[in-house]
Amino acid sequence: MGQDLERTLGICLLGHGTVGSGVVKVIDQQNELLRKRTGIRFEIRHVVDREVAKKRALGIVLADGRPLPLTDNAAAAIDDPATQVVIELFGGINAAKEYIERALNLGKPVVTANKGLLAGHGASLFDLARRHNTCIGFEASCGGGIPIINALINGLAANRIDALLGIVNGTCNFILTQMTRQHWSYVDALKAAQTAGFAEADPTLDVSGRDAAQKLAVLGSLAFNVRIAEADIHVEGIDKLDAADIQFADQLGYVIKLLAIGERQRDNSSAPQANSALILRVHPTLVHKDNVLADVAGSFNAISVYGHALGHALFYGRGAGSMPTASAIVADLIGIGLGTLPAAFRQMRVFPDTTPPAEVVPFEQLVSRYYLRLAARDEPGTLAQVARILGEHAISVSAIHQHESDSRQIVPVVITTHLANEGAMQAARRRIDALPSITPPTVCLRIIEEPREFAGA
Amino acid sequence: MGQDLERTLGICLLGHGTVGSGVVKVIDQQNELLRKRTGIRFEIRHVVDREVAKKRALGIVLADGRPLPLTDNAAAAIDDPATQVVIELFGGINAAKEYIERALNLGKPVVTANKGLLAGHGASLFDLARRHNTCIGFEASCGGGIPIINALINGLAANRIDALLGIVNGTCNFILTQMTRQHWSYVDALKAAQTAGFAEADPTLDVSGRDAAQKLAVLGSLAFNVRIAEADIHVEGIDKLDAADIQFADQLGYVIKLLAIGERQRDNSSAPQANSALILRVHPTLVHKDNVLADVAGSFNAISVYGHALGHALFYGRGAGSMPTASAIVADLIGIGLGTLPAAFRQMRVFPDTTPPAEVVPFEQLVSRYYLRLAARDEPGTLAQVARILGEHAISVSAIHQHESDSRQIVPVVITTHLANEGAMQAARRRIDALPSITPPTVCLRIIEEPREFAGA
Repeated sequence: MGQDLERTLGICLLGHGTVGSGVVKVIDQQNELLRKRTGIRFEIRHVVDREVAKKRALGIVLADGRPLPLTDNAAAAIDDPATQVVIELFGGINAAKEYIERALNLGKPVVTANKGLLAGHGASLFDLARRHNTCIGFEASCGGGIPIINALINGLAANRIDALLGIVNGTCNFILTQMTRQHWSYVDALKAAQTAGFAEADPTLDVSGRDAAQKLAVLGSLAFNVRIAEADIHVEGIDKLDAADIQFADQLGYVIKLLAIGERQRDNSSAPQANSALILRVHPTLVHKDNVLADVAGSFNAISVYGHALGHALFYGRGAGSMPTASAIVADLIGIGLGTLPAAFRQMRVFPDTTPPAEVVPFEQLVSRYYLRLAARDEPGTLAQVARILGEHAISVSAIHQHESDSRQIVPVVITTHLANEGAMQAARRRIDALPSITPPTVCLRIIEEPREFAGA
Repeated sequence: MGQDLERTLGICLLGHGTVGSGVVKVIDQQNELLRKRTGIRFEIRHVVDREVAKKRALGIVLADGRPLPLTDNAAAAIDDPATQVVIELFGGINAAKEYIERALNLGKPVVTANKGLLAGHGASLFDLARRHNTCIGFEASCGGGIPIINALINGLAANRIDALLGIVNGTCNFILTQMTRQHWSYVDALKAAQTAGFAEADPTLDVSGRDAAQKLAVLGSLAFNVRIAEADIHVEGIDKLDAADIQFADQLGYVIKLLAIGERQRDNSSAPQANSALILRVHPTLVHKDNVLADVAGSFNAISVYGHALGHALFYGRGAGSMPTASAIVADLIGIGLGTLPAAFRQMRVFPDTTPPAEVVPFEQLVSRYYLRLAARDEPGTLAQVARILGEHAISVSAIHQHESDSRQIVPVVITTHLANEGAMQAARRRIDALPSITPPTVCLRIIEEPREFAGA
């Protein structure tokens, strides 16, 4: 690619929904800025959508006077020699996979926001791209407009990454923020999220934690240079979270966030190694208010990364939405146009088709602090029984708060623990729930401690 | 560069001080990780230092068994055909510039952390690199290990950047954090910073705001695609800051931070344009506690960026120190080894040798909210006089707090204003200071409002 020769990059866009229309907007409205900055003229050749008639009725005209080049024939649009790069925004698995493979087989680079597809089929798609000497850009798959993929591949490349903690699902974060600040129930907060357009009519993928787990699979694979499958990740969602626990956590100085966490296993005295096994999990987590993640509110996302040289770094921004996601898509387009993205893809051994499967620590071996909330009958001896069970499982109590209750019979008791073993904690919880003076189930949440910085280690 | 051929990148390091020794550590200790990840073997060929004997006495041996290849002959080390890239960590201007030019003239890429040199001579050095078909990496010049340069060049490239607000000087942020949290005086906090190794024996460059201004020149040039000179930036340091104002600000819900700010001028109703003039400034600033920048404590740095598509994004991490800065240096080395950094340098028109000089709004035309602290004699009519002067300059008062004082004669009065004009404010301040009942100088600080997001505009 010549230094001063102006080039054109012909684009085929699959899907003209929320993100797709943002991509059209960015490319079309800022075409002059992009051309001046990169020397590349981005040209929308095809916009593939199932509802061509409906979209055509919108009467969208591009800045150069052409009507939006709509079609419902994805295969022909991809095959068109004028198409040099394909943006996949269909979502879902089957059709998306088929058309991505079609583009890659033609040696055409693909840009996608499809974390579900990447979490399930990333390695085979990356391998296909490699065999056809092309590449896949997926900045938009995690963290919306935050350039976290680029940071993990390039900006932090000098680091052995020891931990990655992310608020990567804007829907859940919006719901939790409303529950915390407005004291709403989960159901009311979910309704508000749906009204505000932050949650789908069927919110299961988000609130179950699965969407966050898929993103952790994508981000963790890059950070730790291993292939992570969704099944490697322990997942709990926010859909069973009780507003009471958010209030109790608040009184203890914590905020509850849905965190996606990948960490290298280590003992407490020494730095992790580049081949340490990983602990991978998504669950509601008590985050101390001093932690910067505690301040990430509403639909914002943030990813904390701990590098062996860099120490702690945080990347914050809008994790979803039309224009922020389009920002990430177009960044990948520019990288493809400049050749930087293909060069990194070709040479860096961080993509999951070039790395070994993750060695994963069984979740029972997690070491964590815990928050327990028991519904205890207000009678002598109950707390002593609970304390004895915890002690027998080598779980050391940090604090106990017995709260007042409207019904005098059953009182909420909140217990926080020092570091303990997950398996031991679940065994203890089962025994506690079997006590006649306890109304099960006892709520058990994990408290995250800020990972240590190992700069210099 | 072949896909599977392992390459060696021969490195000449100029300066084995704090950062230089960190670079040696990262390259040497993580050589295997870096090789696996990038296919490149990074080889330290020369370490140039003025104190060769002293450094040699440290007995540093590299992982491959060679002693650290120390020399005091920079020219010969640069010229050595085995040197393929030069890392400049001498600092200062003259020698650094001479050796960088020597390397570029040989077509060898340069990596540098020298923001002072870049702020003063960036355009001519970039031009020299371009003429010799090579490049300069400068990720380490701003924000320590935070990959903010990479984000501005690549990750955010789809955005018209409308505002950039940074805490970019760790020394000042450490001092301000101590003054805020420990209620220390400036002098005591500075001493603590020096003891902790966060401030130089001569802290002038940092506390005067000049270091932050140099970084703003570097970051702003990339963000706004114009050439910014240090002289374009209005600079006030923290060296005259009174602990009392930190306490009063705290009571009003604000934290005082030294911010480096670049913004496109706009009226309040519409989005800025890509050719809008810039307002560029570094000064102590009242930041509302709700703003994420308020939580950036100690020696951490953070840069808030507002993109037209992305909206608000924040990049946070360690802004100085041996290993974090080394993380940025080695990221540039990797980019040079992969060819991605040269490709972006060659093609992107964002480097100051390829962009026009900034059109800068005179500082008097700034529109801001203000914080004033007056030392007023406690007598009837004083506040009325002050209010009348402000009114005559079209400055609208938001709140007035008259505080109790030990000496009953002179009481501190804190006034916050709505948006007002800087020139009008300074004229009003001069008139207020001339009042017989006021003991000058009246303290005048600026309150930053969170820039608006213009996603979609």
